[in-house]
This record gives sequence, structure tokens and C-alpha cells, in this order.
Amino acid sequence: MKSRAWWIAMLAMVPTLAFSQTRTVPERTLGVPHELVSPELQKVIGAAPPTAGAPTTNEEWITRRNDMAEPLIKNYQVNRERLSVEVEKTTIAGVNCFVITPHNLPQQNQNRLLIHFHGGYYIFFSGESGIREGMLMASYGHMKVISVDYRLAPEHPFPAGQDDAVAVWKAVVQTNKPQNMAVFGTSAGGGMTLGLMLRAKQEGLPLPAAIAPGTPASDLTGSGDSYQTNKYVDNSLVSYDRLGAAAAKLYANGHDLKEPLVSPIFGDFTGLPPAIILTGTRDLQLSDAVNLHRKLLRSGGVAELHVFEGQSHAQYLANAPETREAFEQIAAFFDHHLGR
Amino acid sequence: MKSRAWWIAMLAMVPTLAFSQTRTVPERTLGVPHELVSPELQKVIGAAPPTAGAPTTNEEWITRRNDMAEPLIKNYQVNRERLSVEVEKTTIAGVNCFVITPHNLPQQNQNRLLIHFHGGYYIFFSGESGIREGMLMASYGHMKVISVDYRLAPEHPFPAGQDDAVAVWKAVVQTNKPQNMAVFGTSAGGGMTLGLMLRAKQEGLPLPAAIAPGTPASDLTGSGDSYQTNKYVDNSLVSYDRLGAAAAKLYANGHDLKEPLVSPIFGDFTGLPPAIILTGTRDLQLSDAVNLHRKLLRSGGVAELHVFEGQSHAQYLANAPETREAFEQIAAFFDHHLGR
Repeated sequence: MKSRAWWIAMLAMVPTLAFSQTRTVPERTLGVPHELVSPELQKVIGAAPPTAGAPTTNEEWITRRNDMAEPLIKNYQVNRERLSVEVEKTTIAGVNCFVITPHNLPQQNQNRLLIHFHGGYYIFFSGESGIREGMLMASYGHMKVISVDYRLAPEHPFPAGQDDAVAVWKAVVQTNKPQNMAVFGTSAGGGMTLGLMLRAKQEGLPLPAAIAPGTPASDLTGSGDSYQTNKYVDNSLVSYDRLGAAAAKLYANGHDLKEPLVSPIFGDFTGLPPAIILTGTRDLQLSDAVNLHRKLLRSGGVAELHVFEGQSHAQYLANAPETREAFEQIAAFFDHHLGR
Repeated sequence: MKSRAWWIAMLAMVPTLAFSQTRTVPERTLGVPHELVSPELQKVIGAAPPTAGAPTTNEEWITRRNDMAEPLIKNYQVNRERLSVEVEKTTIAGVNCFVITPHNLPQQNQNRLLIHFHGGYYIFFSGESGIREGMLMASYGHMKVISVDYRLAPEHPFPAGQDDAVAVWKAVVQTNKPQNMAVFGTSAGGGMTLGLMLRAKQEGLPLPAAIAPGTPASDLTGSGDSYQTNKYVDNSLVSYDRLGAAAAKLYANGHDLKEPLVSPIFGDFTGLPPAIILTGTRDLQLSDAVNLHRKLLRSGGVAELHVFEGQSHAQYLANAPETREAFEQIAAFFDHHLGR
């Protein structure tokens, strides 16, 4: 017979279980797919997953941030030249921003403007280390991009970074037509994109003509099915337990992870702009992308889903032909929905 | 030191390896997702996977077919009444067909016609056991459907069934406008849909206005990444080894599985009609759907991808709210692309 303490322990677990009715999937060996995947991407898919766990103090988180930024800042100027874009540092509404202008900016895109939020759990990739995606979009999409260097946790937890996003948005819609604008970003940048939409609705601000939340951090609770099915399959995030759960807690700073402004998937999507969503078959957050797509459609919105073969989280940002394909796809979507 | 025989064996394996650079994914426990999945679908996702392997003789394959058909034929009339459709048996160009007419057939759909091919490895689901999907489409899409009871392996291997598809298509375009028509089907039915498009191009026949190849059997070689990542995760097909590899060989009857008419993913997709593609995050064939989507777009086509949370292969055909959603999504796509 089970003890009273056992029953209490079991009952206490029930409300926190995201999944029930378990079955076991045996150990498996995964190779790198060859068909319809470029050699460059095959290397990315075949790379060993990161092993570092979550830092335990604020100082360790910040050290990790600096360590991750270093190679990106070192390669920044080479990347910028290779992508043929100019980058100018500025502040908008008191928020640090980068204005990214492609050398090839055709006439029909001169009055268009894209707002970019970088990823990194709302903790990593500050300054120049966070603008590579903005440069990719400006270069392959031939549009001007403002990349927002929003404040990061743990120094500035939720909602500081989102407040920055709202402040920049409020400012740019004063001098630019919202119908000529789009907002985009990957992972936390996708979560920020969606959070900004919910905030803009709340505060009665105009919405952009389109959004591109790429494999978005739309659900910091990790309730999506792919958090189990792609656990250890994804070689980018690897698992929710490795870093994501701790990062979410650090960022939310006591707020319930189910609050819609923290995890936008739990928000009301009525009236959101047309959205293009990118992810990969091995993405730990595949379900977040898929559920966002369905929820936007169920809310009467326009939404497009693109899933790349074999890619783990955010690997369409790699140096591969699929990267150009991804950003040209987003650009085509923006071109279709934005005014001129 | 390895023996000479070992090296010869290893080298002999190289050209047949679909995947390389292996790494190991540990044993895992999978639960049923709760978020954004209906209770009805949760039951389907939580069901135990089938354990039966591949039959070894033609007689055993046919016995399996009959065993699988029995409950479907038993429920056929109840399903038909519940879905409010009429079904009439006929032959077109000598091929057995079912004409499925919904009780609710609005004026704007009276001149539209959908052609359906059922799934089942090109081996299973003959006669009334193969028309449930056709009835779902007619009922939820409010359009008339002809479900083609094409010839099946092992009695009639490739290309017999495809010849039937071509014969029916040749006949129906005589009396119906191709621009008012669409072709659809799931799994082998999706493969048949794509194979028919390639044959129609070859033979100079008109193409329909749209197609809906659902989680298509577009690659019988099993080269897609999800054949490894969703192996044992999928509780519908389970694994390529369980049944699919043997079924593909039986159907192809000596033909190379890479022939485009056997595995359409290897064909030329230029000029194919707009396509809507459905699959699920747990689908063993997720990669086939994803690769089809990308290849259609890369060929300059119009294509939409829909991935359902937690679903294994073809589970949008279950009795769940997501089923209606799936077929209403296809119907909206057809409505957009078909003439009247």
C-alpha cells in the first residue's frame, strides 16, 4: 500500500504535468540527411550539440552572454561587408538601435521599413552581437531595417525589453506609415514580435502590415509537443531543461510564464497582421511555430508556415543556401503585404 | 586491426546509406500534449502503436487488406449518414469509382468536381473501405467528389493503379472544366495525386486548378529526415522498417524506388498546380511533406503547408475537431483556386 506522503506527492504533481499517458521511445541513432539539404547545412545538422547547462548566478549569465558575443562581434565587420549593408548606431525613444541600410535598396522599397528584434532568451546578444539577422534581412530582402538593442535580463527582466520595443514602435510610427512596415525576429525575437503586437493592441497603437516571428519563443512554459519529441534531436537548443527553463524563469522575474505578454501563444490573436513563420523539422520549438500558425488561422488571420528539412532551432540563420532562401521567402511575403 | 572483409563490407554500404555522421539520442518517455489539442485527438495521440510487421506472401498481404477493411466497411453506412452525403457506385473509363455528393451542395460549387485517391501503401483500402476521406471532403467542403477505386498491389503492382488514375482523369476532363477541378488524397493517395500530375504533364493532359497531397507518399525510398527523427514517435506508421519498406518494394515490383513516377519527389515540379499539404509534428513522413512544400516553391509554384500539433501520420483523418478544421482548410484553398 502506498503511504499518505506518496499520494500527496503524486497529487501535488498533477497540475504541473504538461503531458500524460506516457510511452517509451527507445534509444536511436540519428544521421545527417542528404536529400534536398545543402552541403553547408549538412555540416550544421551534423555538428555536436552544446553541452553547457544553465548558469546559476546573474554574474555567470552575464559572463555567458559576453562569451557568446565575442566571436559574433569579431566577425561583425566581415559579415557586414559580405552582406553589402551599412550599419549606423543611433537611439530611438532613448533605446539603442542599429539602422541597417542595404547597398541595393530599390526604388519600390525606399518608403518601407522593417523592425528587427534579435533572439537569445531575452538574455543574450546585446549590441553588435545581435544584428546579424537584421543584416541578412536587409541584404537578401533589399529593405531598410532598424534592429532594436532592447534591454536584457537579468539586469532588466520582463517587461523592460518589451517596454523598449513598445517605445521604439511608438516613435517610428510617428514618421513612417505602419502599412509600409513589418516586424520580425527569431526565437526570443519572434516572442518579442508577438508580444509587441499584443501590447500595441492593448495600447491602441497601429499595427504593421506584416510580421515574421521565426521559430518564436511564444510559449516559455515549454508545453508544445516538440519539447518532448525533438528533445536531444535538436542540436541547437537540445532540451528545455538544459537552459530554456532557467532562462525563462530569470526573464519572467516572478511573473507567471502563462501571462500572454510573457508567452504570447496564450494571448488573443484577433486582428493580428499577416504572419510568416519559419521553423525546422528538428526544432525543439517546432510545436510553438505550428501552434502559432494554427492559432492565427483559427483567429481569422493570414499566416504562412515554412518548415525546413533537418533544421534544429533557428538554423535558417546559418551560412547556407537555405538562409538566403529563408530571407527571400520572408521578403516576398513582406513585398506582398506592405504598401509602398 | 580490421579485416579486409570488414573494409569491403563497410565500403559496400556507403552508396546505400541515406544518412551519415551518426549521433545517439537516448531513450525517452513521450506523453500526450494538452495545449491546443482537442480531447478527441489526445486519445488518438495516446493510443498504442500497431505492432504487426510486414506480411511475407501475397496471400498474407491480401488477408491483411481484408482484415483492415472489415471495420471500415461495417461503419461505412453510419459514417455516410453522419456526414450527410450520398454515395453512388459507378465505372469511369472501366475503373471502379464512387461518386460522393453532399446533401449541402451550394450553388457556387455545382460546377466544381474533386477527384480523390485513398491511401494505404497502394495495397490496402479497396472498395467502400477507401472512401471515408472522400466523404469527409464532400461533407466539410460542400463539393462533389469522385473517389477512384484504383487497382492495388500485389495483384496489380505499379503502374496499374496509376494507369487507372490517368484513365479516369482523361475521361473526366472531357466533360468537366479542369479549372473547376482539384485532385486530393492522403499518404499513397497523395503520392497518386502527385504521380498523376507528372503523368498528365508527360501526356499533355490538362492539369487541375489545385491539388491537396496530404502527408504524401512522395518518397518511397524513405530518405526524409523524419524517417529517423520520428521513428517510434509516430504511432500510426511507427517506422519505415515495420511495413513501409516492404510495401514499397511490393508495389514497385522491380522498378527503382527513385523513379519519379514511383517516388514523385524526384520528379520535375515545374508547372504543377497550387498545392495545399497537410501533415503532423509526429508524422513519420513529416519530411516528405516539408520537402514537397519547399520543392514546389523552388519550382516557382504556389504551395501551402499545414502541420498539426502532435499528430502522427494521417491523423487529421481521425474523428476530431481537427479533422473538420483540416478539410475546411483544404476546401478554402480549393475555393480560392477553382473556377465556378
